Parts: sequence; structure tokens; C-alpha cells
Amino acid sequence: MKGNAIAVIGAGMIGAAHAFGYRTNLPRFEKRISGLRLATACDGNDTLAGRLAATWGFEKTETDLNAVLADPEIGIVSVCLPNALHAEVTLAAIAAGKHVLCEKPLALNAEEALRIHRAATASPVVSATVFNYRRIPAVAAIRDIIAAGEIGDLVNLLVQYESEYAADPNLPHSWRYERSRAGAGALLDIGTHAIDIVRFLCGEVSEVAGAIATVSIRERFLPAADGIGHDKVALSTEKRPVDNDDVMSALLRFENGCQGMFLASRVAVGMGNTLSFSITGTKGALRYNSRLPAHYEIARFDGSGQSPFALVTNNPALPYAELLPVPHDGVAIGYAEVFGFMIHEFLEAIADNHPMHNGSTLDGLRAAQILDAIQLAADTGAPVRVSHAD
Amino acid sequence: MKGNAIAVIGAGMIGAAHAFGYRTNLPRFEKRISGLRLATACDGNDTLAGRLAATWGFEKTETDLNAVLADPEIGIVSVCLPNALHAEVTLAAIAAGKHVLCEKPLALNAEEALRIHRAATASPVVSATVFNYRRIPAVAAIRDIIAAGEIGDLVNLLVQYESEYAADPNLPHSWRYERSRAGAGALLDIGTHAIDIVRFLCGEVSEVAGAIATVSIRERFLPAADGIGHDKVALSTEKRPVDNDDVMSALLRFENGCQGMFLASRVAVGMGNTLSFSITGTKGALRYNSRLPAHYEIARFDGSGQSPFALVTNNPALPYAELLPVPHDGVAIGYAEVFGFMIHEFLEAIADNHPMHNGSTLDGLRAAQILDAIQLAADTGAPVRVSHAD
Amino acid sequence: MKGNAIAVIGAGMIGAAHAFGYRTNLPRFEKRISGLRLATACDGNDTLAGRLAATWGFEKTETDLNAVLADPEIGIVSVCLPNALHAEVTLAAIAAGKHVLCEKPLALNAEEALRIHRAATASPVVSATVFNYRRIPAVAAIRDIIAAGEIGDLVNLLVQYESEYAADPNLPHSWRYERSRAGAGALLDIGTHAIDIVRFLCGEVSEVAGAIATVSIRERFLPAADGIGHDKVALSTEKRPVDNDDVMSALLRFENGCQGMFLASRVAVGMGNTLSFSITGTKGALRYNSRLPAHYEIARFDGSGQSPFALVTNNPALPYAELLPVPHDGVAIGYAEVFGFMIHEFLEAIADNHPMHNGSTLDGLRAAQILDAIQLAADTGAPVRVSHAD
Amino acid sequence: MKGNAIAVIGAGMIGAAHAFGYRTNLPRFEKRISGLRLATACDGNDTLAGRLAATWGFEKTETDLNAVLADPEIGIVSVCLPNALHAEVTLAAIAAGKHVLCEKPLALNAEEALRIHRAATASPVVSATVFNYRRIPAVAAIRDIIAAGEIGDLVNLLVQYESEYAADPNLPHSWRYERSRAGAGALLDIGTHAIDIVRFLCGEVSEVAGAIATVSIRERFLPAADGIGHDKVALSTEKRPVDNDDVMSALLRFENGCQGMFLASRVAVGMGNTLSFSITGTKGALRYNSRLPAHYEIARFDGSGQSPFALVTNNPALPYAELLPVPHDGVAIGYAEVFGFMIHEFLEAIADNHPMHNGSTLDGLRAAQILDAIQLAADTGAPVRVSHAD
Repeated sequence: MKGNAIAVIGAGMIGAAHAFGYRTNLPRFEKRISGLRLATACDGNDTLAGRLAATWGFEKTETDLNAVLADPEIGIVSVCLPNALHAEVTLAAIAAGKHVLCEKPLALNAEEALRIHRAATASPVVSATVFNYRRIPAVAAIRDIIAAGEIGDLVNLLVQYESEYAADPNLPHSWRYERSRAGAGALLDIGTHAIDIVRFLCGEVSEVAGAIATVSIRERFLPAADGIGHDKVALSTEKRPVDNDDVMSALLRFENGCQGMFLASRVAVGMGNTLSFSITGTKGALRYNSRLPAHYEIARFDGSGQSPFALVTNNPALPYAELLPVPHDGVAIGYAEVFGFMIHEFLEAIADNHPMHNGSTLDGLRAAQILDAIQLAADTGAPVRVSHAD
Repeated sequence: MKGNAIAVIGAGMIGAAHAFGYRTNLPRFEKRISGLRLATACDGNDTLAGRLAATWGFEKTETDLNAVLADPEIGIVSVCLPNALHAEVTLAAIAAGKHVLCEKPLALNAEEALRIHRAATASPVVSATVFNYRRIPAVAAIRDIIAAGEIGDLVNLLVQYESEYAADPNLPHSWRYERSRAGAGALLDIGTHAIDIVRFLCGEVSEVAGAIATVSIRERFLPAADGIGHDKVALSTEKRPVDNDDVMSALLRFENGCQGMFLASRVAVGMGNTLSFSITGTKGALRYNSRLPAHYEIARFDGSGQSPFALVTNNPALPYAELLPVPHDGVAIGYAEVFGFMIHEFLEAIADNHPMHNGSTLDGLRAAQILDAIQLAADTGAPVRVSHAD
Repeated sequence: MKGNAIAVIGAGMIGAAHAFGYRTNLPRFEKRISGLRLATACDGNDTLAGRLAATWGFEKTETDLNAVLADPEIGIVSVCLPNALHAEVTLAAIAAGKHVLCEKPLALNAEEALRIHRAATASPVVSATVFNYRRIPAVAAIRDIIAAGEIGDLVNLLVQYESEYAADPNLPHSWRYERSRAGAGALLDIGTHAIDIVRFLCGEVSEVAGAIATVSIRERFLPAADGIGHDKVALSTEKRPVDNDDVMSALLRFENGCQGMFLASRVAVGMGNTLSFSITGTKGALRYNSRLPAHYEIARFDGSGQSPFALVTNNPALPYAELLPVPHDGVAIGYAEVFGFMIHEFLEAIADNHPMHNGSTLDGLRAAQILDAIQLAADTGAPVRVSHAD
Repeated sequence: MKGNAIAVIGAGMIGAAHAFGYRTNLPRFEKRISGLRLATACDGNDTLAGRLAATWGFEKTETDLNAVLADPEIGIVSVCLPNALHAEVTLAAIAAGKHVLCEKPLALNAEEALRIHRAATASPVVSATVFNYRRIPAVAAIRDIIAAGEIGDLVNLLVQYESEYAADPNLPHSWRYERSRAGAGALLDIGTHAIDIVRFLCGEVSEVAGAIATVSIRERFLPAADGIGHDKVALSTEKRPVDNDDVMSALLRFENGCQGMFLASRVAVGMGNTLSFSITGTKGALRYNSRLPAHYEIARFDGSGQSPFALVTNNPALPYAELLPVPHDGVAIGYAEVFGFMIHEFLEAIADNHPMHNGSTLDGLRAAQILDAIQLAADTGAPVRVSHAD
């Protein structure tokens, strides 16, 4: 038997987003999940763990994640560690009988993801992976519009996750730039969001018709000291090569006949941190850009030759409105608030004892299978069928 | 002696925004303010109070606000009631020795605001008014840019608060549409934000050179039942006149020589809920639009005849980054998160026992004096000097 | 008896726009107007006149405008001179029996404009003033939409003509900066366009409820040499005061109950040369910005609280399509092409012997009367009724 | 010996754009090119030829293009016929010793283009192909910025030509939809512009790493009557299959290491007729969208993690300013005016007896070689090296 106390493992930026999500959702679930409380902030760096605990109200800190997994009071775990640790820790959490919410990417590759998915399926715990962009109300609304057939059959799409975080050649080397520790580069780190979104909206990808990987900044200095996230820190004089992609593009075929262009870049000067996509169907088109997070654009074919796009703003009829203090006033929904929506669904699944449908380990696996196919297409220069093993 | 428990009085949308702000800030202040906790959700409608308490974690509900003010454990009060009650309840809270954060507008007019300001000044409590837009990081950054002289001497500005909430002729009549209960219409309800922002950025207004008020929808049906906020509800067959402004425009003179155009509209079809402004100086210009809440635009004179505007996105160097789980990733900051920044400052002032500088009762008074001058200019058709009595 | 040869008087930038308009329209009218040809490029500066003639195909040049007016072969005259000469030369052209197209503003003030209008009305010549923005297809489409009642009753509008041409303090002094020679500053030079557009779209202005004029750059160096238009030239060491407005704002009341905010600025850093307006009615709203010259935006009230704006692009159904080589392909319509539309109407009126309805001398007079009222309101600090004498 | 009279062969929309370009440039070249005049409007449909002649001032019409090529007075020919005729007529014009400006695409495939290029190279005539987008001032400015190294080494780009002209399933069948008559579909018809632009800006393409073609609307009704361009006409009851691409995407490798994503679509609901691209380098990024035809955007890496994009407007320092009546006032440059810039270069080359450098037959050939490689990659599902034979 276990308790239902919450632990967040990994006290960086994303750990804080999870902590925020738990904190704001707690009152809604305290009566439905007995013993629910923010118990442990865990990080190998105790200072970071302490900061997380003090800011978001955890009862204690812990530097040893195994101690967290062994703690019988802990029943709910968020895994917010570097990518290479996701599979191992998520599997350990499942084995320990904890409900587990693993940060994206679920794993470094499809093989690891498959192991997690199978373990999760075989276990009674609720397991899930973080695909926060699905819960942006405008994105969720787009899904409903497509599903209702309002833009007709899907013809083609473009999805881009463009980030600037690695554009600075003086940013230190880290695990992110080593294929052995991080897996793919931009493809995995941010491309996984883009792939999940188009699966969410347009269905399964059958084939990668081509892919190109570019390493733009080929080596970086090691840091002189540790930092968190993408922090700038002093550099040492020693360099290490970068051996995974700064930019990855691919052409996708979807099972429904739609074709797609995909781009992930971590050296996209000017783009900050932007997810954008456009989807064209036979009767209309939809666009989203995370710079305008509370909006989507829709064009409906009108025969004028210049069918106009309308800019639709969040309004109370959109998904997730009921979870906000001020439901969709039109202008502003926070990045962290969307994590709150996800954690609401996660706690809901725990409270009602059903699997997580939206951001399941199967979703994590499918994304990994597509990413693997893209990587292989880039490595071999040949088209690659996407595996759907599960 | 009093405790430091928190009560939110008024359990509508804005009460929820306050509750969210308190909830997310609590851990940071629990050690600095003894006895700090979310105690009471108060509303005349107990269902609403209960919903607020359950969602954000208040210990109990209360329908009688006087009971709240009499409760010795309560030390911190948010006043989130209809505008006509702000002055009375805020004065009562100050008299009861409670720290008080009053929703905008601080009062229906300058006379009431002056009474509050004087009571607050004479009391040891921390008192403040809600001017949340000041804490939008992009807006705070604009202030720093202007203060540093980067756009030179201010020449002219345009500020508009355009909302669509009353554009629907079938929205029911309410207190908002009666001058006796609400004071001015769009001018007070949303214009107060616009006026506060330009004072915050550009300094004091000396004169209103002209103003025009328009009532666009001259009567509305009474509701058949009660709703919250701007909810649509069934209508009765009985009509009531609307006697305050749907649209108010004014021309402003600032003490520093800048001139300004002001617009507040609650019948602005297409605008949802949008605050926007542009400020031009001798060396540059700045723009903000709440549709792009994490961005501002700046043009610096470059002699080309077409000085370009650059779109600057929130980044970790901007104000308030340290209060966010994920500091300014560029795309999204929530409306409610900004309330969190404000409540952070409010609790900071209580913890450190200093007055609230940013959104003080003086700020509330100054805004009220300008609004009164605009109303008078609209009523008389003549220019009006702005009173600076305090 | 007179011929139908064309003369352009004034060989600066605007003279070239007229020349372009005549040149591209000539073939369409050669059979309908006997003797139509590009005959004379006239400018006090013969080099400029020669350049205009060589570029656009005039037969000859002339430095004396009286010689042009005395030339019996000349039947059609464009007046593209500095503002202070418009009235005198236009009156002389009418007196000489020439069809005359006078650049905006028709005159320095309403008194002059009235004299021209009366002379024009009493004469059989076709006389017109240049209000080119009326012929932008998107603007003409907006007029049709308003006239059809699609946005309901007009509630309020904002019109701004923001130019950066005088933002450079090192631009030389010229006639534009002297009230005695230029009349008002930004108000007249560019504000006349803005006023004409809102009259075109929304009808007559009854009152100016307030106005503020600002002189931002109070003195300028005289040039060391002559330039054309807004050219940068070497400066002398001698300064002259600027005594007309760099920025003028005003509040307008329209006869139909609509209220309006007006801004004209010639020191608008970042704005280049931008005309923009938004018009809100009880059922919808319309926006135009000359940065997107082939588009307008329309919102139709939809009850969501967030009625979306759609961006409508020029398409073959829009006005003036038939005058373009490639009718409204959606992306690009030239500033000079719009002059072509206007000159097409002017030549049409001459060919068919009817008055010019769109950009008549009455339109020029009405604009002048509103500008005079704005100037008076700014000078006196009191509201001013707009004269409708004609 | 031949004269220098001008003939436009093909009197549709594009023929009119050429006619406009000749007409507006004529005066500048009349003294430099003896006998230059607008002589013949040629079209198999005499009504169309007559309309073109009457609108733009040709002396006569002709329905037989061989008569035009045999006319000794004609020295300059524009080929504005359907794509399948470009090669044959251009070769015939070269053989007849005429200077020739052929509409894009120069030919249906690289083999034809190579024959034209070789014939042109062997002949003293000036030959060129229409790549009008190169002369958009903002695009030309982008080329200068890249060439100056301002955005560093090129990393990746996205170019899209999205048109809506074929999105209407009730638009009639025509030669455009038959691979035997039109060659590729969107790829050739509009994709050729996109390919030329990225070659112009970023250099040669070495490989197509993958491509996907989609036919979205698989059959269309034959028209009941003829139309021009994309006109809607009455349909017959007989259907014909569409056998070339409605949408074509491809991944490109450039010789300089840059990677690119390419899209051409003629069924892009909402896009009207839009060319857009973004180019990212190690130090900055550039964007262009033909909806904002007088602007480009540039971001320069600034280390903030959110390097801002600035929107730069046409100004007199930009290319081609001297060819406009009103040089780059910031808001509007016409589609047809850009044809005027191209024809200015063409006439300049004729007057000075030098080859056309910008839009040469080599440019036409290179574009055709890339398009062929894209088509082959789509047909075979394998990467394709781009031929550089010439």
C-alpha cells in the first residue's frame, strides 16, 4: 500500500512548472485523493531542491531519487530530469507502484519508449508523458474543428518548433549536445512537441519521405561551473564537439493522405521559443503561432480566390475555460497554466482510476517512433516507414 | 492584535484571480508572515463562495462581509465587490485594521477615493488598489525604457481600452449600466486601467482638453435570473435605460508637455478585451497590445525616414521573471499570473512593513481625479483642469 | 476654344505621380478626348521639369506657369505646387478655362477653398482635388460595406495619419514649417487626407469637441541648398522657428452621432508614412492600415464576446480591378497606381462632360472647413462648430 | 536588319503586365533605342489582342504569332503564352533575331530550357526570363544583406508559394492541369518563382533530399466556354482528370551547406497569392511575405535569447527607388510596377548591348533543373542530385 503524496524529481525550470501545476490544482483534489499533498522536492543539487520547495510549498527536500521512489508515502511522481534519465526513472517509478508523469521526451528512442509503454500498460498506475501544447485552448479548439470536418480533407501541413536557445556560440556545452546522452538534438528536445501536435491534430504518420540534419555550431566550450536550464555561465577553455542536430527538417506522409513539412531548430535566431503550424484542407485552413498564444486563425473557402483568415481569440466556449480563474478573457494564458491543465487531467485520472488518454505513454511511444524514423531518414538519406509496434 | 489570515470578499471572476494570486504566493511568505493562510471566501451568494473556497483552498466560506471584518484572525482582505461598494468596504477594512487590496476602481469618484487615501495614509495597514497591467513585464519594461530617456521627450500617446463585453444588445441590464450605482460606464470600469497605465508610464495629466461620451445601446432588458460577471442569462421582458457611457474618448495634456488621446469602449466589436497603447517621443516610439501580451514594440529614430519597429519578446532580463516557474520563455504569461505579481508585492509590503508603492491608494486617487475630469469635460463640453488634491 | 493637351505644373514627387497617372491612362482616352497628349512639364526649376518630361514623356518643359495657362493647346492642368500656391494657381486655371486637378490640400483654409469651389461651380471646366486614398480598393470597399449597413450604426472611429518625415531635427527648414506660407502643419499637409477619408466613409463632421496642437521641434536650420520633397540637404548655420503643428489631435462629432478621434503627426518615429483607421458600429467594425495596402479587416458581431477580425485581401470583385493590368492578385497595389485610378476618373469626367463627384472641390472645401475648426479649437481651447457654407 | 518595335505575344493578364512595363518605360528609352515603340498586341483571340492594344497603346493587333516574328520592324518580343508554348516561341524569336523576354517558366523542363539557353548564348539578341520577384525592392535588399554577411553563414530556409487559384473544385479544367501540356502543376506554375528566389538569395541547390506531390482535386469539369487566366466560367458536364501536382513539397540542400524546405501549392485556401520565405543564418534571420510587399523583417542575434525581428519598410535607400514616381514612400509598390523594373533592365540591356544578368536564360535553366530534380524525387521517392549542365 502506498500514500498519495506528490514528489517532483528534478528541480529545474520544468520541475517548477510541474510544482506550479500541482499547487494550483491541489484544493480541487484534496477530497478526492486521500493524502494528496506536496511532499518532496528532489534534486541532486540540494540548493535547487530547496528553492523549489520554498517557492511552491513542498514539505521537504531530497537529493536521492531512489529514496523518493522507496518512500511509501509518495504515490505520485513527476520526472523532470535530463532526457537520458527519463526511461530509467520512469520505469523505476512504475515498478515502485507510483503514478508517474514523465517530461517529454518520454525516452531517447522508440525502443526505450516501448519498454515504458509496455510496463505502464501492465501496471495499475496512471502513467503519462508531458505534451503540454495539446492543452493550449486554441490548439484543442483546432483539433475539434478538424475533427468536425470543417476544413474538409487534410491536404498539407507545416509544423515548426523554432527555438533560439542554442544560437549563442558562447553558451556552454552540456548533455544536450551529445547524442550519446541526449539522443537527437533539436529533433528530440523540441521536435517531439511538434510531432505530438500534428499527430494530435492530423493522425498517424506513415512515412518520412526525407530528412536533413544540420549541425550549425560544431563545438562548444565546457562550462566553468554548473547552471540551470539554458543559463549562461562562465566558460572553461576546453571545447567539446556537438554531435547531434541543431536543425532537423523532414517531409512526412500521414495515413490520411495529408503531407507535411516538419522543422525543429534550436539555433533559430529571432524565434525565441516558438511553436507554429498551419494545416490546409480542401475546405479551409487553420494556423497557430505560440506568439499569439490565445488565438488561432481560420480561413474557410469562400470562392473569392482570397478566402480571408479570421483571428479567433480564446473565449469562454473554448476548452479548459473552467480551469482558469478568469475564463478566457481573450488576451493571456500562461505557459505554466497549461501545465496546470495537464496536471488536472493527471490527477483526474488518478482520482477516477482510469488511464490518461491525452498524453499517454502510447502517445509518447508514437512520437518516439516518428522521431526515430526522421533520424534514420536523415542518417541514411532514404525514405523510412514509421514503425507502429506497441 | 490581529492575525494574518486572508479573506477574499467577492467570489466572482476577479475574486478568483486574487485567490489564485494568494495561493501561488503563499509558500514564499509563510515564514515571513506568521499565520498567513487562505482562510475565508466571502460572498453574499454562498454557492459562489463555496466554489471559490473549493477551487483555491480557503478554509471556510462566509456570506456576511461584516463578519469577515470582525474576525480577529483575518488580517488581509481583498475587496472584489461591485464598484459601488469599493469605498465603503475598503474604508471599513482600514478601520478594522486589515491590510486591504481593493479592486479597481478604488472608488466611484475622486471624492470617495480621497477619503480612502486619507484613511489609508493615517493607518498603519498596507492598502493598495489593483492596477494589474502595471505588472505585465512588457509594460514594466516600457516604463524603464521611457525613464531611461531612450525615446527622448514624450510627444504624444494613444491609449485605448476596448472591450466587447457590452456590445451584445441582449446582454442583461445590471448595476454596470446605472450611473448611480456604477458611476461612469466604460470610462470607470475599464478606462481606469488605461488612465493608470499612462500615468505609470508618462506622468501626471494636467488637463482634459475635451471629451465625448456616447451611449450606444440606450436600454437593456432586466435579467430573469442572476449571473456572474458578464454571463449571458435569460432576460425578463422589462427594460431599463442605460445612463452611463458605452464609449468615452478624451484628449489629455500631460505635465511634461506630452499630449494624449484616450478611448474606453465596452461596445468595441472585434476587440474582445484589449488594452493597447503607443507612445511617441522625439527619439523613438513604443507600442503595446494585450493581444501580444509577452511583447512590446520599439522604434528608434534612425534617419531612414522609415525607422523600423522591432518586436521584443519577454526574456529573462525583463521584470518579474524571477516570480515565474519558467522565467519568460517568450510566448506566454497568464492574466492571472500578473495578479500573482501584484499580490507578491502586496505581501512583500506586509512582510516588510512598508507602504505599497506601485498601485498605492494615491495611484487610485490620481486615476479617479483624471476620470472625474474626463466625465466633467464630457458633461460640460469644456476643457477641465485635473485636480491634484491629496 | 482650347485644346486638350495636358500640363503638369510642379515637377516634384507628386508631379511625377500625376504624370504616371496620365501616361498609363492616355491610350484609354485618346479616342474619346481629341488632342489628348502629355504636352508640358512645368516647374520653376528647369532641371526638374526636364527630368519629369524625360521620364514620363512630356513633349516640352516650361518654367513659367503663366505661359502654361496662356497656352491655348493646354486644356488639362494638374497643380502640384507647394500648398500656398494651390488656391491662386487653381483659380487662375479655372479662369483660363482649363480642366484642373489640384493637389491636396485644395487651399490653405476654408475661405480660399470656398472661393475655388464657387469659381469651379460657376465654370464649365472639370475641377477636382486629389484625395487619392479614396481610390484605394480596400478603402472603397469599406465605404460600400458601411453604406450597406453591414456594421450597423456607426459608434466611434479613430483615424491617424502618421508620418515620420519631419522627425529628423536635422531636416532643413522649409515653407512647410511656416504657418504664413503653409497654413497648418501636419494638420493640413497630411491631416487633410485623414479628414477626407472619414468624411468619405462616415459622413459630415458637425463639431470639433477639442483639439491639441504640439510643436515638437521648435526650430530648424535653413538649408544651404535646395532639395525636392523631403530630401536631406546640407544645412546652413542659420535657424528659423517652426510655428505650425508637428502633431495635431482632435475629437470629432459626426452628424450621424458617431464620435471620432483624429491624429495627424509628421514626427511619428517608426510610422514612415501610414494612414490607418478603425471604425466601429453596432454590428461590426472595420480597420485599414496602409502598411497592408491591399487588405482591410472586418469583424462582425457574433455573440462570442470575441468577435474575430478577418483579413480580407483585394480580389477581382473589389473596386478598380478593371483598371489594373493584373486585377487584384491579392498582394500589391502601387501608390502611383492609385493616382492612376483618380486620373482615370478625372479624364472620364472630361470625356463625358460631367462634374467630378469623387474628390470634388466641395470635398476639398468640406475638408478645409473641418481643418479650420480643428485649428480654431486648438488655438482657443474651446469646442468649435464646423461651418458648412458653400 | 531589324527595327526595335515591341510586340507582346499573349494578351492575358501577364501580357498586360508586360504592356504596362513597356508603356511606363518608353520615354526613358526612346532616345537610346531608335524606333522603340509599342507596335503589336498579338493573341490568337483578336478580342483580347484588341483590348490589350486599346488599354496600353499598341498600334495594331495580330492573331498570328509567326507574322509577328516575321515582321522586320519588330525587334523586341515578350512571350506571354501558356507554358507549353514558351520554348517553341522563344526559340523561334531568337532564331528570328528578336530580343526576347519569356514569361516564367522558361520551359516545361530542363531539356527545353537548356536548348533555349544555348540558342540564346549563341545569339547576339538579349534574352531573358521573367523572375519579377527578384525586383521587389525588399527582396533585392535582402539579397544585399545576405551577400554582405550580415546574417552570417546560412543555416536553413523555408520558401513557400501558396496560391488559392485552384482550390475551387468548380474551376474548369484547363491546360494547367495536364502534365503533357503544362508539365508539373503548382511546382512549375508558381514553384518556379520560389525556386528562383532562393537561388537568387542563397545560391545553388545541389540536391533534393526528398519530395512529395499531392493531387488534391483529382478531376475537373471542362469549361463550357473560354476564359482568361483564372476566370470562372460556366462548366460543361464532362470531366477530365488532373494529373499534375496541386501541392509539392521538397527538402533542398544548397551548395553552401544551407538546408531548405520548399512548398508550392495552388490549393492553399486562405493564402490568395502569397510568396513568403524565411532565411536563418548563424548571426541573424530575414523574412519576407508578399502580403506586406513593401517590407522585410530582420533579426540580428543579440544574446537575449529572444533576438527581436524589426520590420523594415521600403525607403529611398532601397533598390529601384529611382524608377518610381514617388520613391518608396513606405506603403505601396504595385505588382505591375515590379514588372516595370524588370522591363527597365531588359531595355537597358538592349540599349547598352549587354546580356541580361538578372533573370538570364541561365537563371531559367537552373530553376528548371531544380524543378526537374524535385519532380523526379517525388516520382521515385529517392533523393536526386541537381544537374548543373549548361
